[in-house]
Parts: sequence; C-alpha cells; structure tokens
Amino acid sequence: MALGPESASAPATERVVISVDAMGGDRGPAAVVAGLADSLARHPRMDVILHGDEAVLRPLVNRHPALSSRITLRHAERVVKMEDKPAQVMRHGQGTSMFATIDAVKDGEAAAAVSCGNTGALMAVSMLRLRKLPGLNRPAIASLFPTPTPGKMNVMLDMGADVKADAADLLQYAFMGASYARNGLAIVRPRVGLLNVGTEEHKGRAELHEAHALLSRSADAGSFAYIGFVEGTDILSDRVDVIVTDGFTGNVALKAIEGTARLVGDLLRQTLTSTLMAKLGAVLASGAFRRLQMRIDPRRVNGGVFLGLNGTVVKSHGSADATGIAAAIGLAYQLAQVRFLERLAARVASAEAAGQDAAREEADRDAAGPATGGYPTE
Amino acid sequence: MALGPESASAPATERVVISVDAMGGDRGPAAVVAGLADSLARHPRMDVILHGDEAVLRPLVNRHPALSSRITLRHAERVVKMEDKPAQVMRHGQGTSMFATIDAVKDGEAAAAVSCGNTGALMAVSMLRLRKLPGLNRPAIASLFPTPTPGKMNVMLDMGADVKADAADLLQYAFMGASYARNGLAIVRPRVGLLNVGTEEHKGRAELHEAHALLSRSADAGSFAYIGFVEGTDILSDRVDVIVTDGFTGNVALKAIEGTARLVGDLLRQTLTSTLMAKLGAVLASGAFRRLQMRIDPRRVNGGVFLGLNGTVVKSHGSADATGIAAAIGLAYQLAQVRFLERLAARVASAEAAGQDAAREEADRDAAGPATGGYPTE
Repeated sequence: MALGPESASAPATERVVISVDAMGGDRGPAAVVAGLADSLARHPRMDVILHGDEAVLRPLVNRHPALSSRITLRHAERVVKMEDKPAQVMRHGQGTSMFATIDAVKDGEAAAAVSCGNTGALMAVSMLRLRKLPGLNRPAIASLFPTPTPGKMNVMLDMGADVKADAADLLQYAFMGASYARNGLAIVRPRVGLLNVGTEEHKGRAELHEAHALLSRSADAGSFAYIGFVEGTDILSDRVDVIVTDGFTGNVALKAIEGTARLVGDLLRQTLTSTLMAKLGAVLASGAFRRLQMRIDPRRVNGGVFLGLNGTVVKSHGSADATGIAAAIGLAYQLAQVRFLERLAARVASAEAAGQDAAREEADRDAAGPATGGYPTE
Repeated sequence: MALGPESASAPATERVVISVDAMGGDRGPAAVVAGLADSLARHPRMDVILHGDEAVLRPLVNRHPALSSRITLRHAERVVKMEDKPAQVMRHGQGTSMFATIDAVKDGEAAAAVSCGNTGALMAVSMLRLRKLPGLNRPAIASLFPTPTPGKMNVMLDMGADVKADAADLLQYAFMGASYARNGLAIVRPRVGLLNVGTEEHKGRAELHEAHALLSRSADAGSFAYIGFVEGTDILSDRVDVIVTDGFTGNVALKAIEGTARLVGDLLRQTLTSTLMAKLGAVLASGAFRRLQMRIDPRRVNGGVFLGLNGTVVKSHGSADATGIAAAIGLAYQLAQVRFLERLAARVASAEAAGQDAAREEADRDAAGPATGGYPTE
C-alpha cells in the first residue's frame, strides 16, 4: 500500500497507540499476537494496548521479549463470539475484550482500534461507545480491492454497515471514501464513481439519480473528481478510485468477488495437478505464481474501516492469520498517524454543508427564485 | 450443459423453428451466421428464420450449402444499434431486424427468438410485442454461472430486466427460475436461495424477510427446495441451483463476477509471461490451461433468457463470437423443444395461486381467525 509521508502528519517523535482485541478471531489469540509482533517490528513509533484473557496472552507476548515493553496487557474476562447477536452484545457486552478495545479509543488512550471479531457486534459496540460524527446519518464500512496496476487499490463503501442508503447518505459516503483514499492510500484527488447497472444517466433507481446530481455539484467541496455512474466490472478496474454504493449492494458485490476469486483459484489448482505435464509446468512457473498470489492475496489488504464514528476502527477478517492481522494493524497505524479522524470529521461537516447547498439550490430552482451564491465549504 | 431427454418433449419428428436476429451484435452478421451453421449441424430437427440485410446475409448463408435449405432469409431494412434508447426503439423500431425476430415468435412461426442486440431495447420490444404472461408483474432475465462441479451451472435472476422487485416479484422469480433450471438444465427439484447479506433470518431488507416467508410456504407448489438466504459467495457454489434477487443487485453481481474473472485472467497471463521459467511452465501446462478455459469459458454458457413473456427470447452477449452465438441458439432450441413456455406459464399461474394462498394465510393469522386448508395448486 502506498503511504503518505509521515512528516506531513503527527510529529515524528510522537508515539501512536493502537488498541487491539486479541480475542474473537477464528484463529485465536496466537495469530493476533504474531501479527501484532510483526506490525510492531515494522512501525517503531507504534505502541499497543492488547485486550483479552491475560493468562492466555502473557505467555504469547513473552515470546517477543524485544517488543513486550511496547505492549500493555489489559485483562478482559469475556469474549464476544461469532454467533452472538449485535443487540445482545450491546446490552450485555460489558467486560468483553471488544468493549474494552473500543473504550480505549473512546477514552483517548488509543488513536485507533483493531478487532477480528463479529462484524455486526463490532459495528454495534463502536456505534454505542464512540457515537456517530456530528451531522452524519449512517456510518459505513470501507474495504480495499486489487486493480490491474501493481500496488494500486480501490476503495468501495458501504460494505454492509447498513442495508440501505438514500441520496444524502451516498453523498456522505463519497466524502468519507475520498477522505479515506487520500489519507489511507495517498491518492490526492480520488476519482469517485456511483455504482449502478449502466453508465447512462437514465439507468438505475431513483435515489441514484438524486445522488448523481448531488455528487456532480459537490465534488469540488469534497476535493474529489466525480466520474459518474460505474458498473460492477469497474470495481476492480483502473477507471475509478472510490466506488460508492449502499451496504446491501456493496456486501453482495464483495462476496461475489471473493467467491469468483476462490472458484478460479480452486479450478486453477485442480488444473495444474491434473496431468504430469501440468504438474511439471506448475513447478517451473511456481515463482511467478507466488508473485501473483502475493499481489492479489486478500490478507495483504485485510481490514474494513468503519467510517463516520468518533474514533477509527479497523475490522480485520474473522479468519485472518498473522499476515492478515499485521495488515489490519498497519492500516490502523497509518490512519492514526495521519490524524485521519480529524480530517474525516471536517469532510463530513463539509458534506453536510454541500448537501444543504445542493438542497437549497434545488429548492431555489423549484421555487424559480433568484440563484444564491452557495455557502462556503472547506 | 445437461439436457433433458427429447422423447419426453416434442415429438421426435417435429421441426423446431428458431427466429434469429442477424444484426446488432458487435461482431456483425458473419459471426451470427457462423454460429448458426454450427448450431444447425448439431441439431438436425432445427430450422431457422434469419432476419437482417439480405444483400449481406445471402452470401454468408451460401457458404453453407448443406444447411442453407434450413435457413429462411427475411430481409429487414433497419438495425437497432447498441446506443439506441429502448423507448425510441419501441416507438420507431418497425422494420428493424429485432422487431421482425420477435414478431416471428408472436405470429407463431418460430418457437423461440435469439438476438445479440442491445439488451434494453430487446426487452422493451419483447414486452411490447409478446406481452407479459397472465398474472405476471415483472419479467426477469436469467443467466447461467459456472460452479466447482464440471458441467453443473447455476441460474441467477433477475439480471436487470427491472431495477426493483418486491416480495411477490421475488416469489415469481423463484417459480420461473426453478422452471428454467428444470427444463433448461434438467435439475428435477432445484434448490432455490434468496440473495442476502447474510444467512441469518434477521439480516437484510424488509422485502427480503417477506419474500423469505412467502418462499418457505410456496416451495412445494413450485416443485423446488427452498434453502433460505444465500450470500454473494454462494452464486458460483454447489450449495444452490437458483439464486433469486432483484435486477439491480443481480446486474451488479454479474458484472462484479465478470470483472473479477477478467482481472484474474489478465494477471495470470502477465504472470506466465513474466520470466523464461514461467513461459516454459506455461507451455508444459498449456493443455491443462485450455481445458480450464473451456470449462469456465463464458461463451459456452452464453444467453440470458427473458422469463415471463408470451414467447421465449434468448439474449446473446453483444460481443459474442460464433461459439457464443451457437450456445445461445442451442439454448433457445433446447427450451423450445421441451415446450418450456407452456410449462413456465403454468408455473407463473401456480406462483400467483401460492402467493394468494400465502397472503390469505397471513390475513387469516392477522385476523386470528381459524386456519384455512389452503387452495389447491398444481
């Protein structure tokens, strides 16, 4: 991932603290601590508060004597399980490592949180403890996708924080997604596209036409380039940097992409072991295959980011291994050290202003009254 | 594709006539005639009415002297172009090869139609000329998808005939999709799943919960097994045979899958030409790669089927080559010879009855009245 220069952000001597939930992932705390150690070694300015069962975590942390002084252990009695319902966790989740992980951000002890627990519960707890940014209607989950260009990632949101989004929500997603692309991926003026069933203006649902008009008028205020409607084929393309959609469509698209990659991978493996010649060929090409796998390895782009809360939360995939966890923690660190949250909050405020501008323009036009000059935005 | 036994369907001596639009595809009439010739050679009981510019088509047809007696040429002055708007084509499309292709089905001359023209225009013209089946609210486009099992295809609908669908529409899609899987893919009791963002009952939008209840109660009437909610990862899986969704979500998922397959294929090609060793390996494994390509070749499953009209219409991909066109014509032939349309119409009628039953049961329960026995369905 391309990272912005650290000098432009937090002072180079400042420590950056990340709050990490050691529990709740499919592979258990050992994978989390291994990924954490890897990430600490890469980022000398990072410290970690690690939440979970101290009796389990202490021996795992002690395997990394050079790093253990940078890890603060916080014992948590309880764990949120994958099958726990978000509503139950919200009501009865006090004392879980997930609550403690988010509360460290809420209390200002840590700059960002990472968990590989249950997505629904993590979003519910994050909403409950961190609350939404002022002026924001629906928070969103943003994920990263590979493209044909090495090292270049696309951002898509919402991936399922909410199953619906109206035009004003889609406008806020665009502002938040563009801010994430700028601060997380160092894309100065991201190209934003609105996911639809065709690129022609007459296609798609009513709320998309409304969002299209809003985005066309607000792109300057959000410091992005609005490229109009994009299609499913564009998600993994070089045409666009940020793909905006509702959480239902985004979640289905994400999982359709995962399913396709898995099927093609499985068939390829079958193919390359089907005959002696193919096996021989596979051995000769194994170095090239490994490089390909590195490039599209979903573990290396692990981490859905919750956007729109008073705190940065990175959701690691439940089945992430040490490599995946390290990527998620690295992403949280990157966002924390560029002070992403302050920038995002400013963008959400400007999206609100831009939306009000647009609504006012609309009302003015509808009333056939004189055009106003519009309100100043950042 | 697995086909049902012909003996169970139309008498083995009966001719099956397919109406084919020679114009409007990206590769022009030569590809259509080449695919047509291939398909005629495979299906000795098939005859074709071919619509388009006679001056262009006559020499192309004459290249196949053994088959030309089975092709009836119908001159059409005009062509629907890819950029033509559906509404314009509906109003001013008289005299185009697309209109003539559909009218041959309307007039009972042909049992099914095939076109690789503009999808929106083809659906509009088909709706206008063939009209919807009695009791049907929204027609749908069904497409086929590969799975891990060789030769096994999954059906998904709607792929974009309409951008929305309520619970009653989704029930009709399930009945039509199951009928298509039975008659087009010889799956006796298809497993139907409803596309959602998770498999738990509380997930997703309100209309999906309503559709979930309708489908649970109507599966027997539709002779399918309802397996509940499925996710994007299941579209290309062996878990399900028919995936039901609205046309917006279906179209985005289809194109996301296409985009992923394309990216992985492109990266694989780059990888296998990146070093001398990789090139050598690729040569050795080339036979295995060819078999893999055959298996997931989208041209071999070419053809979206329009379901819910008084006539069978197969939409071939606009960029289809001769192999793709032959697959689309073969699909139209298969559906025609099992008398799919009559069976589908019966299913739509039974979906209507099942929906009314379900609505009545609901009303009865709501009124806390005595339970009724339900209405008989086929």
